[in-house]
Amino acid sequence: MPIKHPLISVNGVLDAAISPLDRGFTYGDGIFETCRYQSGEIPLWALHRDRLLGSASRLGIPLDESLLMAYLKPLLDEVRSSGINAAVVKIQVTRGIGGRGYRVPPEVAPTYCVGVFPAESLRSANFLNGVDVRVCTQRLAANKTLAGMKHLNRLEQILARAEWQDEYAEGLLMDESGHVIEATVSNLFVVKNGQLYTPDLSLCGVAGIMRRNLIERLAPSLSLRVEVVAMTLDFVCRADELFLCNSVYGIWPVNRIVDDTRSFLLASFGQHPITHQIQGMLEQSFALVD
Amino acid sequence: MPIKHPLISVNGVLDAAISPLDRGFTYGDGIFETCRYQSGEIPLWALHRDRLLGSASRLGIPLDESLLMAYLKPLLDEVRSSGINAAVVKIQVTRGIGGRGYRVPPEVAPTYCVGVFPAESLRSANFLNGVDVRVCTQRLAANKTLAGMKHLNRLEQILARAEWQDEYAEGLLMDESGHVIEATVSNLFVVKNGQLYTPDLSLCGVAGIMRRNLIERLAPSLSLRVEVVAMTLDFVCRADELFLCNSVYGIWPVNRIVDDTRSFLLASFGQHPITHQIQGMLEQSFALVD
Repeated sequence: MPIKHPLISVNGVLDAAISPLDRGFTYGDGIFETCRYQSGEIPLWALHRDRLLGSASRLGIPLDESLLMAYLKPLLDEVRSSGINAAVVKIQVTRGIGGRGYRVPPEVAPTYCVGVFPAESLRSANFLNGVDVRVCTQRLAANKTLAGMKHLNRLEQILARAEWQDEYAEGLLMDESGHVIEATVSNLFVVKNGQLYTPDLSLCGVAGIMRRNLIERLAPSLSLRVEVVAMTLDFVCRADELFLCNSVYGIWPVNRIVDDTRSFLLASFGQHPITHQIQGMLEQSFALVD
Repeated sequence: MPIKHPLISVNGVLDAAISPLDRGFTYGDGIFETCRYQSGEIPLWALHRDRLLGSASRLGIPLDESLLMAYLKPLLDEVRSSGINAAVVKIQVTRGIGGRGYRVPPEVAPTYCVGVFPAESLRSANFLNGVDVRVCTQRLAANKTLAGMKHLNRLEQILARAEWQDEYAEGLLMDESGHVIEATVSNLFVVKNGQLYTPDLSLCGVAGIMRRNLIERLAPSLSLRVEVVAMTLDFVCRADELFLCNSVYGIWPVNRIVDDTRSFLLASFGQHPITHQIQGMLEQSFALVD
């Protein structure tokens, strides 16, 4: 039986609503995770958990992990019993209900919102055939106190994603100094001379879970060296291979980079031998949790 | 009879709640206004309306003004009939209910959330006696596509406001280049040699309604010249007078600027003759709408 999509609980109550005084609603005062559920588990849970707790701590949100897990469990149980193989599990934690004003009330209790959404198979058309991407006009602002977190202040990404419709799978985002940082919902990796490079995210961007999985697990398991660097668009365009990644869709090889504001093909990539190796390793690791 | 505080309606329904799929809650995808209600009216409504419609347009949110006014009217009627003299009217408009993902759904309808909150008298202790302010460690990121708007991505202000408790009335915020931009909920004006100066907000900061009222109405009515400039902290500290403003509390003279991370008094200001003149003009203009 297919599960009802989306299935959402707020503080453990299914189909509940949010107070208009929730600081998530009034100020984007919170964080979220979008996790791939695959064959009964969230395979990258340890990394999601680490980012969630770390970001809550940076923002001073007193996240209660045991409460979150208690709210998450019945939803995961329902997905498991539905027999669905793949889903997206979204976890959102806000600072909770406050009054008017930015100041954090002394007795505020976080809001835990957990949802299950449909997901494509990992071996999607984009995973298998690769994607075309464009370069966004919207830039990312540099702010080291917010950098890396998957927080709820996402207007930059929304404005960037509004720049195109269906013509491209993703858009590359640069910071104000012209360095490539990420794509709207993905991180990026350059393959060059048998080595991986990915942008430094210490001033802006979301430090993605699949990015960390690549740096700490997948690349080392293939004896591939990864360097975190300040990355120009020129460097990206002169890559041997380029791929995007996130924890929901996995890894997408990039076929072409287009500057569609000037109808200009910036780069095209042919074969993706190393990207395919990494994709294979990812598929193996996801199957292993089954 | 006192009104029930806070009095909040969502899409015209009193005490209604927000969907956890509202893009205001998931991404801070929206805007707000906090207006002073005074003696039956919102005296600066024309300016609030202008910023609200302008920001909605910049973000591509199809705000329906007649719908907003239909939702606002019963709340204003209730406040008027309660006989309360002063209140804060908060208007929040989000892009509405969406699915997962930053992309704007084709058929999305904005959410209109209108609330009434308590307000102090305009002639508050801070208005009459002035305030002490501190300098925040948190910096504002430069992003010209978001600058000036009162949007719902407010983590920078929240982190800044979390730097102190009750010791100061406000905190000054600088951008990454060290220019003073605003305070957490206020704009600032320097008085120097009989002239006003206020920071340029083209790269960050909220273009406040009282700031615009000062530039376009109050200062000209007193034949005071206003210059919008890139402003260093040193320039602020060497002012003859300094004041903060917003549309809810009006104008607060600043008595002292403190760097409390180093327990260091940066500046103190004695008399505020020009600030008091402007305060008088503001009081007159607010009384005139009665």
